[in-house]
Amino acid sequence: MEKRRIRFNCDYSEGAHEKVLEKLVVTNMEQTEGYGTDDYSRQAKELIRRLCGGTDGDVHFLVGGTQTNLTVISAALRPYQGVIAAHTGHINVHETGAIEACGHKVLALPSKDGKITAAQVEECYLAHMQDGDREHTVMPKMVYISQSTELGTVYSKEELEQLSKTCRKNGLFLFLDGARLGYALVALENGLTLEDLANLCDVFYIGGTKVGALFGEAVVITHPALKEDFRYLIKQKGGMLAKGRLLGLQFLALLEDGLYMEISRYANRQAQRIREAFCEAGIPFLVDNTTNQIFPILPDKVLEEWKKWYTFTYQERVDEGHSAVRFCTSWATREEDADQLVEDIRAISFC
Amino acid sequence: MEKRRIRFNCDYSEGAHEKVLEKLVVTNMEQTEGYGTDDYSRQAKELIRRLCGGTDGDVHFLVGGTQTNLTVISAALRPYQGVIAAHTGHINVHETGAIEACGHKVLALPSKDGKITAAQVEECYLAHMQDGDREHTVMPKMVYISQSTELGTVYSKEELEQLSKTCRKNGLFLFLDGARLGYALVALENGLTLEDLANLCDVFYIGGTKVGALFGEAVVITHPALKEDFRYLIKQKGGMLAKGRLLGLQFLALLEDGLYMEISRYANRQAQRIREAFCEAGIPFLVDNTTNQIFPILPDKVLEEWKKWYTFTYQERVDEGHSAVRFCTSWATREEDADQLVEDIRAISFC
Amino acid sequence: MEKRRIRFNCDYSEGAHEKVLEKLVVTNMEQTEGYGTDDYSRQAKELIRRLCGGTDGDVHFLVGGTQTNLTVISAALRPYQGVIAAHTGHINVHETGAIEACGHKVLALPSKDGKITAAQVEECYLAHMQDGDREHTVMPKMVYISQSTELGTVYSKEELEQLSKTCRKNGLFLFLDGARLGYALVALENGLTLEDLANLCDVFYIGGTKVGALFGEAVVITHPALKEDFRYLIKQKGGMLAKGRLLGLQFLALLEDGLYMEISRYANRQAQRIREAFCEAGIPFLVDNTTNQIFPILPDKVLEEWKKWYTFTYQERVDEGHSAVRFCTSWATREEDADQLVEDIRAISFC
Amino acid sequence: MEKRRIRFNCDYSEGAHEKVLEKLVVTNMEQTEGYGTDDYSRQAKELIRRLCGGTDGDVHFLVGGTQTNLTVISAALRPYQGVIAAHTGHINVHETGAIEACGHKVLALPSKDGKITAAQVEECYLAHMQDGDREHTVMPKMVYISQSTELGTVYSKEELEQLSKTCRKNGLFLFLDGARLGYALVALENGLTLEDLANLCDVFYIGGTKVGALFGEAVVITHPALKEDFRYLIKQKGGMLAKGRLLGLQFLALLEDGLYMEISRYANRQAQRIREAFCEAGIPFLVDNTTNQIFPILPDKVLEEWKKWYTFTYQERVDEGHSAVRFCTSWATREEDADQLVEDIRAISFC
Repeated sequence: MEKRRIRFNCDYSEGAHEKVLEKLVVTNMEQTEGYGTDDYSRQAKELIRRLCGGTDGDVHFLVGGTQTNLTVISAALRPYQGVIAAHTGHINVHETGAIEACGHKVLALPSKDGKITAAQVEECYLAHMQDGDREHTVMPKMVYISQSTELGTVYSKEELEQLSKTCRKNGLFLFLDGARLGYALVALENGLTLEDLANLCDVFYIGGTKVGALFGEAVVITHPALKEDFRYLIKQKGGMLAKGRLLGLQFLALLEDGLYMEISRYANRQAQRIREAFCEAGIPFLVDNTTNQIFPILPDKVLEEWKKWYTFTYQERVDEGHSAVRFCTSWATREEDADQLVEDIRAISFC
Repeated sequence: MEKRRIRFNCDYSEGAHEKVLEKLVVTNMEQTEGYGTDDYSRQAKELIRRLCGGTDGDVHFLVGGTQTNLTVISAALRPYQGVIAAHTGHINVHETGAIEACGHKVLALPSKDGKITAAQVEECYLAHMQDGDREHTVMPKMVYISQSTELGTVYSKEELEQLSKTCRKNGLFLFLDGARLGYALVALENGLTLEDLANLCDVFYIGGTKVGALFGEAVVITHPALKEDFRYLIKQKGGMLAKGRLLGLQFLALLEDGLYMEISRYANRQAQRIREAFCEAGIPFLVDNTTNQIFPILPDKVLEEWKKWYTFTYQERVDEGHSAVRFCTSWATREEDADQLVEDIRAISFC
Repeated sequence: MEKRRIRFNCDYSEGAHEKVLEKLVVTNMEQTEGYGTDDYSRQAKELIRRLCGGTDGDVHFLVGGTQTNLTVISAALRPYQGVIAAHTGHINVHETGAIEACGHKVLALPSKDGKITAAQVEECYLAHMQDGDREHTVMPKMVYISQSTELGTVYSKEELEQLSKTCRKNGLFLFLDGARLGYALVALENGLTLEDLANLCDVFYIGGTKVGALFGEAVVITHPALKEDFRYLIKQKGGMLAKGRLLGLQFLALLEDGLYMEISRYANRQAQRIREAFCEAGIPFLVDNTTNQIFPILPDKVLEEWKKWYTFTYQERVDEGHSAVRFCTSWATREEDADQLVEDIRAISFC
Repeated sequence: MEKRRIRFNCDYSEGAHEKVLEKLVVTNMEQTEGYGTDDYSRQAKELIRRLCGGTDGDVHFLVGGTQTNLTVISAALRPYQGVIAAHTGHINVHETGAIEACGHKVLALPSKDGKITAAQVEECYLAHMQDGDREHTVMPKMVYISQSTELGTVYSKEELEQLSKTCRKNGLFLFLDGARLGYALVALENGLTLEDLANLCDVFYIGGTKVGALFGEAVVITHPALKEDFRYLIKQKGGMLAKGRLLGLQFLALLEDGLYMEISRYANRQAQRIREAFCEAGIPFLVDNTTNQIFPILPDKVLEEWKKWYTFTYQERVDEGHSAVRFCTSWATREEDADQLVEDIRAISFC
């Protein structure tokens, strides 16, 4: 029997978790208000506030990540202000200049593992603000980080506290892109919680698209300056879903019984099995992490062969003969597919 | 027994037609490519091209109307160019300045019924282009019309032909917003078809959100200049859905067996029943039309009373004591709800 | 002897008043700081603050009107906010969509004489803010008026007070475009002063380009929210002149001995002579005013003839056979040129 | 007698060369067309075309560098396209995000001496264009270089030919910022001429502000796609000078008798004298070059002392105890001021 081609290239190859879909189906013919002002959205917002430790933050639902990033950043910055990010940050490299299209420079900082440090932020801020002619350069006003990062790494509680402290000292907004927040929250040993995020960030989001929803990101805004008129920006940027309840309903399904954490844990476990197989086979990694993305450095010959049975993402050339690639697991990864991959990894070790 | 409060305020109060939802459910756990490059999206695009008379147009799927409008217009215009529209046009009044946020002026023309004429377009174009200092004014480069319009009216084939001719003569792109295209297509006696639209417009869309889908608009681009790099713009503006198949699947469901036309006809029929009841009750209309939106002018006393049982949209004050409001039907309007409204209308006539 | 062709088409056909030029010449080889931080600019700013009644407003110098308008409006508005203006306003019709290119809608109000009223502003504001779905429309946040207007009319002190009161009540910034401020200030019988402008407006400018300078507009910002980081915006929008002293020097020359008012009075006097000649000849006007722009409605035959000896601006067709045109005087208008025109006007009356 | 404080911090501390100023004075009261359509501007454009080897390029005059950069780049790019530049490029670091404010990402390449190579451009282009998901990244469409660079270095003819070839091969526009073009043209041994620039670049400018004019940059556009409607963009971006002749007149003065080259040579000679003095004193440079900017690395103690008599620009800290600074000469540098500096440099060598 022929092997199926299995997708490990990303964490959004399937539809939604069955409980999410079910919620949409059973409420389908109900009549509700549009644009996110319905009762389901209200309930989901209330639930999120509760999970964030009873924050008085505003919650808004958007459809996707790029849309969320550009809307939040547009809300935060005056025209001459910029946003600091790792050069690997999604807004810097994978959003077709969406932030610049809203008029703002991304001030990119070097990073090996997808993270930036409080010290880097401070240095960048001072470099732009101490000069006598400072109005000739962009004014940094926001820091963008991803949790987990584009390289699967996570900020520890201490790292986030330092970033938060530096941002507050210098009047910078701290914005955490949580497109893969589930995978990060359950990966942490030190107990960084949603409540911590609400305390340490000025705005962050709980990603649904990559963690069990059909689509959707739940933005939590705690800084008063960012709350003002946010719905105007959602509408103007094209992100206000007519049937807004679809977003509220999905987040209710994901968050009301701990499903979000449960499926994130599952995905990380599958990733860990695969990661360990690579380790045992003596395969090095481009970057170490404990979430749902794995970045092995593999012989090009193996990659050429594997293309027939797997899809994965090309990351970068490492040397003549070897490339780093990305494998992702998700809430939807099937055990038997991970088994298959593990088996094929073991086969390499005998090469 | 207490009467339920029934929503007639818009055509997107419910979820999706059951056939649309079913398609999402049965394909849910399949693995596909992301970002609209999957097979379902490909099939849906092929189907749409076929329904448009075998056009070689490009088809793209977006989530919502404002997003579609701003993406198409960004694709069409250089920075100093503007788009001509009726002053009642959605882009002019109900998108929070989304077009201006992309840098472009909306050149608004007066309109009583939501439509603009070829003669108006020509006059506006010439007024901006004949002056010796024409670079001091915006250059008109696109015409935006809605079918059906925001006032429920429809352009006849002849009207559209004239607009198209004027646009081509003057190098203007013709863009038709089809958020409610279904209701317009089946309302027309003169047989304006998708094929006609593909021939007469440079770009138009087939609206899903208001005609049976959870969400989604299918953009058809026939002018080569507008095709170029359109996916870059979708991504940059935040409109590229990660699980793009959700859009392809919904349009397959709507279009493969004529469902789109069928449910549009149903909605118009319900509207017609209600409209006739108003007529018989001697209630005048703000504007005449034959689609799914009805604009009666009612005594404020009646409206005050009706608010308890119905939701409808306030349109404008007509005189002291009377206001125009909007009632919408849709594919999801229940016969018994329309019956109820008709009954209540009849009751007015005895006031 | 052949008659010279005389320019009455605008108020910027010549260079600068000799005293302005002289100041540039005598300081030419001095070394100063760049970007407007030099002593001459400092002195000019201090002088302007003094002339504005000792205001603590910030003063900035920019090169031209469109640049000033787009910089001020960019400083004032968040992305979803718009600026209210007369439909005849310079920003609405003669700046190639500069405001929209900065992302903002111009909310145009009808006007016969170039002015808008407090009542119109209030109505426009309420129409955008009372609706339950107000985030679907642009939020008005600034009012733009010109003094004198594009039709040469002036706001009286009372009219300006009413506008100011309405703006403050509704949280709208009041911005006065003073490209032709000199001609307006000396035209008023009721004593509207620079001090009044500083009190009633949140930001306004004293136009130099059209009143004796080579170029230059002096912006006075009294509202604290508009002061913040204004130099960043000047730089970003391309308006920060390297040799900023050129602006400071010119305004010193214009303002230190009352030259600005003196030459404005002269221009208005020449305009008045021409206006009276038209009156006596029975020529009607498109709009009545007492500043340096004159809008006679003339037979096309006369205009055709006059084109040989004069340049003037075509305004609009009034009826078959008659058009409204614009004649401008300025500080540089020569008495003998005005004499010539008056003579030619008298000749019409005998047609 | 007390020493005067002498400015070497930039090349725009004085007004204009006397011949430039004289031209403005003698034509001051002439009446001309506005907005650059006058005869002087026409003559200056014709002269520039002739000096560029009879190119059929379009010539436009703008007031300043940032304004020119943002206008040219806006004319060249569609919304999702970006411009490649050295990370030290003026548009990347010293224009307050002006390019991003027009919607475009600056794709910054590392550079030690302010220059970028054809190989770097090619690599950057391919990195953005080979990926299957290339619409997720910005599309490079223009290359921006400065001649001389922000570090005073110059591209040789061969380097420019290679850049040009790479750009043409990949459909990239080549844009040369010539704010300091004079100093570069006369610094080159290999004879890179204006004609070469017209042949090798798609658009470039001849800087006036830093080379003898009060202000002004002359843009030469040779690529047909960039010519289209360029005046619309000048107007929209606020760069259309009402009294446009001021620009034409200044370029006539600078270019009609070789003044531009002559004064550039003079400035470079003064720089060379100073540079040699540093050399003899054993002072190293941050970067080697032969134009009007000098970047010595000096002991902080010396800099502290020199601050009393000279202004110069702080560039960067090199080590504890030493900093790189910038001294500029210009057409206006006085021999005796350079003498003074040379003398003070010699004094260091005995420390």
